[in-house]
Amino acid sequence: MTVPKHSYKDIAAKKVKLRNAKFNAKWLVPEDQLPSPDTKDVLNWIESSGNLTDKELKITGSIAETILDNIKTKEWTAYDVASAFCHRASIAHQLTNCLTEVFFDEALERATELDKYYEDTGKLVGPLHGLPISLKDNFNIKGKATTVGIVNFCFNPEYFEEDAVLVKLLREQGAVFYVKTNVPVAMMMPESINHIWGNTTNPMNRLLSSGGSSGGEAALIKLKGSVIGVGSDIGGSIRIPASFQNLYAIRPTFGRFPTYGARSGLPGLESVNSVNGPLTNTLEDLELYCKSVLACEPWLHDGKCIEIPWRKVQIPEKLNIAICGDDLITRPTPPVRRGISIIKEALIKDGHDVIDWEPIDHLRLAQICTSFFLSDGGVHITKETDATGETLFPYMTNYGTSPELKVSELWKLHAERTTLIKKYLDRWLASGSLTKNGKPIDAIIMPTTPFAGNPNGKYHDSVAYTSPFNLLDYSVGIFPVTRANKDLDPVDDSSSNYTPTDTKIWRDYNPEESHGGAVALQIIGRKFQEEKVIEMLKVITKLINYSD
Amino acid sequence: MTVPKHSYKDIAAKKVKLRNAKFNAKWLVPEDQLPSPDTKDVLNWIESSGNLTDKELKITGSIAETILDNIKTKEWTAYDVASAFCHRASIAHQLTNCLTEVFFDEALERATELDKYYEDTGKLVGPLHGLPISLKDNFNIKGKATTVGIVNFCFNPEYFEEDAVLVKLLREQGAVFYVKTNVPVAMMMPESINHIWGNTTNPMNRLLSSGGSSGGEAALIKLKGSVIGVGSDIGGSIRIPASFQNLYAIRPTFGRFPTYGARSGLPGLESVNSVNGPLTNTLEDLELYCKSVLACEPWLHDGKCIEIPWRKVQIPEKLNIAICGDDLITRPTPPVRRGISIIKEALIKDGHDVIDWEPIDHLRLAQICTSFFLSDGGVHITKETDATGETLFPYMTNYGTSPELKVSELWKLHAERTTLIKKYLDRWLASGSLTKNGKPIDAIIMPTTPFAGNPNGKYHDSVAYTSPFNLLDYSVGIFPVTRANKDLDPVDDSSSNYTPTDTKIWRDYNPEESHGGAVALQIIGRKFQEEKVIEMLKVITKLINYSD
Repeated sequence: MTVPKHSYKDIAAKKVKLRNAKFNAKWLVPEDQLPSPDTKDVLNWIESSGNLTDKELKITGSIAETILDNIKTKEWTAYDVASAFCHRASIAHQLTNCLTEVFFDEALERATELDKYYEDTGKLVGPLHGLPISLKDNFNIKGKATTVGIVNFCFNPEYFEEDAVLVKLLREQGAVFYVKTNVPVAMMMPESINHIWGNTTNPMNRLLSSGGSSGGEAALIKLKGSVIGVGSDIGGSIRIPASFQNLYAIRPTFGRFPTYGARSGLPGLESVNSVNGPLTNTLEDLELYCKSVLACEPWLHDGKCIEIPWRKVQIPEKLNIAICGDDLITRPTPPVRRGISIIKEALIKDGHDVIDWEPIDHLRLAQICTSFFLSDGGVHITKETDATGETLFPYMTNYGTSPELKVSELWKLHAERTTLIKKYLDRWLASGSLTKNGKPIDAIIMPTTPFAGNPNGKYHDSVAYTSPFNLLDYSVGIFPVTRANKDLDPVDDSSSNYTPTDTKIWRDYNPEESHGGAVALQIIGRKFQEEKVIEMLKVITKLINYSD
Repeated sequence: MTVPKHSYKDIAAKKVKLRNAKFNAKWLVPEDQLPSPDTKDVLNWIESSGNLTDKELKITGSIAETILDNIKTKEWTAYDVASAFCHRASIAHQLTNCLTEVFFDEALERATELDKYYEDTGKLVGPLHGLPISLKDNFNIKGKATTVGIVNFCFNPEYFEEDAVLVKLLREQGAVFYVKTNVPVAMMMPESINHIWGNTTNPMNRLLSSGGSSGGEAALIKLKGSVIGVGSDIGGSIRIPASFQNLYAIRPTFGRFPTYGARSGLPGLESVNSVNGPLTNTLEDLELYCKSVLACEPWLHDGKCIEIPWRKVQIPEKLNIAICGDDLITRPTPPVRRGISIIKEALIKDGHDVIDWEPIDHLRLAQICTSFFLSDGGVHITKETDATGETLFPYMTNYGTSPELKVSELWKLHAERTTLIKKYLDRWLASGSLTKNGKPIDAIIMPTTPFAGNPNGKYHDSVAYTSPFNLLDYSVGIFPVTRANKDLDPVDDSSSNYTPTDTKIWRDYNPEESHGGAVALQIIGRKFQEEKVIEMLKVITKLINYSD
């Protein structure tokens, strides 16, 4: 079959038109009343614009637990809650272009059913009764498409017939779905841009990217168009957007949260596994989500899940924390370096033992991770992009040019990676020789990227702060520290010149342009230490006490 | 470099000569006093031959717990124990050709050290203080080679510099290593034969194979030359030999027992993972081993291990058991069919709910498993065999002829396998619709192979009873039921003609030849249900009450 050149534009336009028809006009702000495109920071615009009622503001400003409690006590109906979030998500979209699938009608219908059920039976359908949850556009939802930013997937299939396992479990617990959120093409770029939905910008500073690949999710949550959203991460795709919007997030070890039925840009890749996890404005919401999913015993629903329930863990009162402020591949920009200083000082002041952590093998781990992404020679992605004539963005040209590996070559990379995993674990457990109490470190704290949100189009090619932990399959949390400040974060004089990318990032850095961007860091626990990561985040959150 | 044709014979001869020099003459039975080669069943030969002292017989006839207790109470020394097992293993080798590396001197030295430590300190070094453990010749031991049956590995390296993680942990607990045991070339055949060490025969009937790939281990344990041995399994390699020698065994889910530092025939293959687990004469020994390894917290030593401690589980008093007596790919030979009838009747009589289980997708799972083994086009194996000119056995010619897959093709197989995993799990959990109490099945019971031990060289090409559970990564136990009996297991009249292999197996079956062979079955639990499998084995063992 010959595909007409540029048919991708027609398909994308058709898809967007159908989506746009799903918005409710009453919830949209007239174009001329929106902030002008040169308004960088739109964080407080929704609150101050008067478009939401007080009740809507109160609902969307609440944490999940409050929402659930207020539905339980009948202070609010599930309909009230769904409606408020649909309204706010609509405006968040107008400000950042964060949504893909929109299905407010179904959400309100579902909320009505939940209210009726509660009214009729006196029972809640589950612990998430009436809670709106937003999903990255890679989770299959019955009756919806899943584009993962690829034009050929707009109508292929037009509607999935089954929920992804995670969606099914959340739905059974009472969650209400209402939107899916934007991603890069095949979810394989650090900015959420594609030929269907366009680019999602960062509400903290719209000159900056929302990050990728869960950028739509992060922008939506930051504007409180959602209380809990679910993203996915195979090289940093939860953590980068979460850090660019100063959110909390968890990249779990593979097998803790169910992945079956999520659409992949690289289906069948298992050398490094995509995982999914929550992005939230608060730590309370993060924990509530993790507990709720694990309470569903996902191992009974997804054959790759691991039978580890959510565990109560106790952490030492004083932590042993290793800090790696610079991976020697790309030096963080000044605001991120300041963020590292802030956390370091706060930890020391609070009596925790802080040691330095060398980024040993990080470069090789990152290289191998990239090799895995490209190991099929881009066959799976280019088959889809070629089908409609869609062109590859500059970030992804290597998917069109990399040679396909032979399986024997892949095995060699696996074997090397397995050795590096062992080496990293041994180093972690031997770190007691560097701490005061002789016990190994509890966590590593690192930048998530070199950026406080990268200027749109200028991420360049390094995900080496995040991707090593995908290969190691460690549990990683994201926490906000501060915002970029042009007065506190001036250009530095000298380049580190680690790599050409490093030099480019140094040249690009512009304090004015980055002003207001997010500085959020990674806290890294070992495999299956999600509970511990959350407990450590509680300690850190108290020390930092961040608010926008 | 040109390798002289047949250099492999010289290398192998040199290696065997070095190994033979390690035997202790005083422990070897003079050739002319050994049973004649036409003595098929040598199970009781060691006991009755008068070569072992009463004390040696008592030690080697004890379960591990008794051995450990008697060392603790100083009834026996670790030296007594090591010496007894070295002696008995020597004779077991003379009867079945089961050993590869032999290092009795080091074992006795180690035992002496342990005795001295206990004498000096009053303390045991760990819970396995003085327990001899035999290892399949794929576990690296510091100072020893690991051939995995490949000539090119005889001296390459001549000595490994580090213990495999499992070996290190067992050693720290006090285990004494003294032998490694025979395997097929690269551990990829169902019979333990190779160009270095030759063939390991079955002590229950030496016309039969000991099975593969942990055949040396199984033969040694059956003759009580070891109380606990460790094998590995990527397609059936623990289960087939365990079943051919009527042993107990566990094929655990990947990640429960550490695998790092075990040599692989297919290094870097991860589409299906090799796992290791114990083979024993008793269920008590099986459980002791599992508990001991998990008590070492292997996840702190092997980055691929999963943080699930050994758990106390309770099983229903009356089990829901699905029985699949025939996988419709190769019909079991008559003794195995009788074994299935025995367990079925015993379970029903004891009040358990027994339902039939269809082998849905087993053929496809087995096909995919084979495709994974061959996905590198045999590159890794033929590189090693070509290096010395060693020829491939008929079972392995496909490693020399299969085309190498491209990574994109591998990904398609992964995706298909992932769907099959989900489908199987769903079917398992939906099985409550078939049981009396409405609860899903607790386990599946199946033949392990079509054979009560195959006649040497006549396994043919089907591992479809075992390999589907490698792909599903389920926890599987092996338990003995009965022995083949020429009077009870006559030739049946008609072939099932499922497949050409099936027809060959039917034609080969000879009641006289198979007489005395083992009939042991698989009991299959879901992922990470090793504890439950052991509890279920306790129920079954009481019902069957097997002894040779």
